Amino acid sequence: MDVPKTPASFDRAELAELLDGRWAQVRTHVRRALTGVDLSPGDHLDTESHRARTLEQLHLLVESGITGLGFPLSHGGQGDTGGSVVSLEMLSGNLSLMVKAGVQWGLFGGAVVALGTDRHHDRYLARIMDLQLPGCFAMTETGHGSDVQRLRTTATYDPATEEFVVHTPHEAARKEYIGNAARDGRMAVVFAQLITRGDRHGVHALLVPIRDERGNPLPGVHIEDCGRKAGLNGVDNGRLTFDHVRVPREALLNRYGDVEPDGTYASPIANESKRFFTMLGTLIRGRISVAGTAGGAAKLALRIALRYADARRQFERPGTGEETVVLDYLAHQRKLLPALAKSFALHFAQEELVSTLHDMQSSDDARAQRELESRAAGLKAVTTWHATQTIQTCREACGGAGYLAENQLPQLKADTDVFTTFEGDNTVLLQLVAKGLLTNYKDQFDDIGTLGMARFVADQFVGAVIERTAARPLVQRLADAAPGKDDENVIFDRGWQLRLFDDREKHVLDGLARRLRRATGKDADPFEVFNNAQDHVLKAARVHVDRVVLEAFVAGIERCRDRDTAAVLERLCDLYVLSTVEEDRAWFLEHERLNSRRAKSVTEAVNALCGRLRPHAVDLVESFGIPDQWLTAPIATGAEAGRQEAQRAYDEG
Amino acid sequence: MDVPKTPASFDRAELAELLDGRWAQVRTHVRRALTGVDLSPGDHLDTESHRARTLEQLHLLVESGITGLGFPLSHGGQGDTGGSVVSLEMLSGNLSLMVKAGVQWGLFGGAVVALGTDRHHDRYLARIMDLQLPGCFAMTETGHGSDVQRLRTTATYDPATEEFVVHTPHEAARKEYIGNAARDGRMAVVFAQLITRGDRHGVHALLVPIRDERGNPLPGVHIEDCGRKAGLNGVDNGRLTFDHVRVPREALLNRYGDVEPDGTYASPIANESKRFFTMLGTLIRGRISVAGTAGGAAKLALRIALRYADARRQFERPGTGEETVVLDYLAHQRKLLPALAKSFALHFAQEELVSTLHDMQSSDDARAQRELESRAAGLKAVTTWHATQTIQTCREACGGAGYLAENQLPQLKADTDVFTTFEGDNTVLLQLVAKGLLTNYKDQFDDIGTLGMARFVADQFVGAVIERTAARPLVQRLADAAPGKDDENVIFDRGWQLRLFDDREKHVLDGLARRLRRATGKDADPFEVFNNAQDHVLKAARVHVDRVVLEAFVAGIERCRDRDTAAVLERLCDLYVLSTVEEDRAWFLEHERLNSRRAKSVTEAVNALCGRLRPHAVDLVESFGIPDQWLTAPIATGAEAGRQEAQRAYDEG
Repeated sequence: MDVPKTPASFDRAELAELLDGRWAQVRTHVRRALTGVDLSPGDHLDTESHRARTLEQLHLLVESGITGLGFPLSHGGQGDTGGSVVSLEMLSGNLSLMVKAGVQWGLFGGAVVALGTDRHHDRYLARIMDLQLPGCFAMTETGHGSDVQRLRTTATYDPATEEFVVHTPHEAARKEYIGNAARDGRMAVVFAQLITRGDRHGVHALLVPIRDERGNPLPGVHIEDCGRKAGLNGVDNGRLTFDHVRVPREALLNRYGDVEPDGTYASPIANESKRFFTMLGTLIRGRISVAGTAGGAAKLALRIALRYADARRQFERPGTGEETVVLDYLAHQRKLLPALAKSFALHFAQEELVSTLHDMQSSDDARAQRELESRAAGLKAVTTWHATQTIQTCREACGGAGYLAENQLPQLKADTDVFTTFEGDNTVLLQLVAKGLLTNYKDQFDDIGTLGMARFVADQFVGAVIERTAARPLVQRLADAAPGKDDENVIFDRGWQLRLFDDREKHVLDGLARRLRRATGKDADPFEVFNNAQDHVLKAARVHVDRVVLEAFVAGIERCRDRDTAAVLERLCDLYVLSTVEEDRAWFLEHERLNSRRAKSVTEAVNALCGRLRPHAVDLVESFGIPDQWLTAPIATGAEAGRQEAQRAYDEG
Repeated sequence: MDVPKTPASFDRAELAELLDGRWAQVRTHVRRALTGVDLSPGDHLDTESHRARTLEQLHLLVESGITGLGFPLSHGGQGDTGGSVVSLEMLSGNLSLMVKAGVQWGLFGGAVVALGTDRHHDRYLARIMDLQLPGCFAMTETGHGSDVQRLRTTATYDPATEEFVVHTPHEAARKEYIGNAARDGRMAVVFAQLITRGDRHGVHALLVPIRDERGNPLPGVHIEDCGRKAGLNGVDNGRLTFDHVRVPREALLNRYGDVEPDGTYASPIANESKRFFTMLGTLIRGRISVAGTAGGAAKLALRIALRYADARRQFERPGTGEETVVLDYLAHQRKLLPALAKSFALHFAQEELVSTLHDMQSSDDARAQRELESRAAGLKAVTTWHATQTIQTCREACGGAGYLAENQLPQLKADTDVFTTFEGDNTVLLQLVAKGLLTNYKDQFDDIGTLGMARFVADQFVGAVIERTAARPLVQRLADAAPGKDDENVIFDRGWQLRLFDDREKHVLDGLARRLRRATGKDADPFEVFNNAQDHVLKAARVHVDRVVLEAFVAGIERCRDRDTAAVLERLCDLYVLSTVEEDRAWFLEHERLNSRRAKSVTEAVNALCGRLRPHAVDLVESFGIPDQWLTAPIATGAEAGRQEAQRAYDEG
């Protein structure tokens, strides 16, 4: 097997520029804005001090001028949606700060922008941007986290006073895990079942004041502290219970549904379910920010672990009198380098997603919107799991040192842990992705026997045909040029790799559609049918995301102008592909896409690529341009190297 | 495919008794001793208060009468080594307490017992047992964690004063992560390179006082606090640096090596390396305790997650008006039930390991000792990874609730995280296991060209031929009775399963030996050869442990006297086997042990077994008899069910 080589070095500046991408200016601005400002995490503090510090740091962010990025130009913002997501991702070294910022400007502010109308924008946006009005996003309830369509909080319109009565009927209906609620929030966007004239119109959002100017809960508002969490303890999560709290009619965020003074309900979207999912769709930015931040945290963890692994030595190499640098061990490379390759892949996929989000804003293309939502759901699931797994691996790769708070990994681990289940539980999200993909097969279900199935599958994702990525023409060209299958080096051919991923996705999805159809007799229970195939459903979503991510990586490399740099990226891409194939090679073997010999050669190739990339590992991770303020771990900033020098000096004399 | 059924119910008392096993009395005693004693974890406290509380709780353990279990009868202990390990495992709900107890009585006390002689036992054991003398186990150094044979602390004998001079020559040589060091320890077992008359004799242990009666560091002893860690913050880990600290000649724990007053060195074991590993071997109990405790923590996490999953509902089941219990989802079953099955498997394997340890004490069988060490290394690695993974899965399976401190999972996660790298880094341990297995092939390497290789492989594990488990005759009988390969239900046949695991182990190991031999030419660098095969090496160890664990599970079921209970255990064992096969089915396919059809049927069988076991899941996890004091999570003790009742009552009227 001829494993392609890497050049002796590459152009770090070129790679950094490529990675900074479309929002390079925002990244540069954030890096500058953070310099000299103390945004260091407060995780060593007690809860109250940690929360207080995080709030202070939020005010520092206001001064930095990056918090208005996502708000409309008409109201003093910068109208740069993509930039706002990218700027949050840059806060990966202080995730309490990132999440509290995300709550204030992304979720709370974002909901007012997206679901409100001029009357809300004029009145509140300036005070939201400058943090005079700290707010909450009160959607999740104790009893309903994933199934938010069935929230139980009610907002009942009273025409006599022209007010809504917001009410929590029982404990399961209280608002749960609400950021900014336990300590700082003054107002909340509350999602509730809207009732007027005795009719229910589904979930709508209202602005409900929760604290007075002095910070005391308002009458009828009961606030409970969620207490300590695994991480993110700088964020004051709380529970909100409303006891017949009255707000004026105008408190309704009325872009997608409004109530006349007399109680008449009106909405531009007649179908209740479609309306709800349209509203949810406008809030997609939060999910995309979580994916970006998870990716950022994984990069920081890799930066720490790789720098340490490149310095740390253990066990004498027989006959040399020298101890071995741990990154020279194959087992250590295998822990860190495929994760590094995947971080690159996801970086490019995230940039593409943010670009799509940014460009979509003025679009009315419903299909494109569904596609964006599906892409966001899939990438959020895959990236947050990647972060959880990678940070765990990095912790273990640093041994006992990785367990010390001073080396940052414990906090990164604890803070990011919730990412896999908030802003959409990953397992639920992947099912949404799969259902979206299955709508391509909807016609197959459209007979009497399978009508229930079709409904169950299609659900909110009607018409989401997900096929295109930005890289399609390039992908097609590469795939068409792929050599025949018999060359043993074919596994390094990008076209072959692309076809392999593409083919896997099609086959898994075809198989799933067939399986569902087969199981759907006249009397079949759609729930049972779908539940019995749940592992297949999740698989379909995963392999779809794998393909999308690979295509984004390929497109990213295409933008690289320096030959040596591109060559290194090509090997990283090979490693991403082949370690992904290796992990799933059971499927490729079961479906005769690979034979035994080739499957074994994939493992061999992963090992060899680890060796090729090992000399570049630290330079590669540095190219992400993580702000230096976020790197404080002594093991990654010279302590280990210093100790070894002292030991060598002692040993030698 | 005929997936074997489970009975409607089983005998919980019978299962509980079976699981309590040989040390049922100790388990019962601990359960009783914990009742009414406040040993609740102090993780919500600041570091100093948490440490103080943990120390107080350590004194409560003394009163409970379980801390002397592992000490010799001759000195007031109970001489029950196995019981001492089991009792530690029962502390899984307060892991700071467990670890601090493990440091005091397992590591510190255990080292004095195992490496010291009468003069040390008479003088110290009573005060160690009753905690008058809190101590440390100072082996690890900042520069040497895994490779402890190369520690740099020195103990140089000075015949003029008949003292040892204990010294830390440079920062890499300071003692690191030492439990009990930062706050409470008065004395430390310090591992150092022994030098006398200018000759080095390798690592030995000495008793070095580190604090005076008032708790101040003694002259020449510099103590630094390791600060906050990811978890276990009730344990005061610290760094110890010695500046020419003098201790009397008698401070040397002299069972395996002594220095005469004139400086003459003498040891019953001539070979320095063999002596060191013999000393290490006597300390194996700590590693076994970590495995047990990790297993205990995983069980507790599963108890919480399964009870919640059995109560929590989400998403209406179309057409029923009822929301679905989340444990009815296949995806949720797949997260939790294979982990439950593996917990049972590891429970039986751990019991077998503890029994072997217990029975070995008076034995001089070097081969059996090596085998025990290998078993302990392998099981520690596999069980601690299982704990990390399972607790993570449980956290995610509980969604946002799993992120709240009140629901215990965050602390379990944070506390157990270090288990995969302390008491032996898992990756290093698995390599030891593999090297032990390879010594069976040593003859094949024994020619001139491969002599270096043989040395490199055999290392400390000379002669460790690992074959036997307690269940061998039973296993042989079942394997011999296995039907031919053509029946589609063969995958449920225990004999077939046993042969499958056995065959995989043999094949992987044979292949590894061949590969190493092939690569070992006259000029081959043994390091390179071994490093290039490191993934293969780790694989060999893993599949070996899988086989050992399965045999222990089979033997455990054989001891079950109730038919229905045994039937449920049989299905759990099937799930353990088939989910393990599923995970590694790429290997089975690559090596033509399974064809595509059968590989797919394994996945189908895992799904079906999840369904069969789902009704028993909560009863099964309850049978472990985790002390009730450790279950405090509101989501697992009725809060969720209560909320749903309130919601239902409200909805209905």
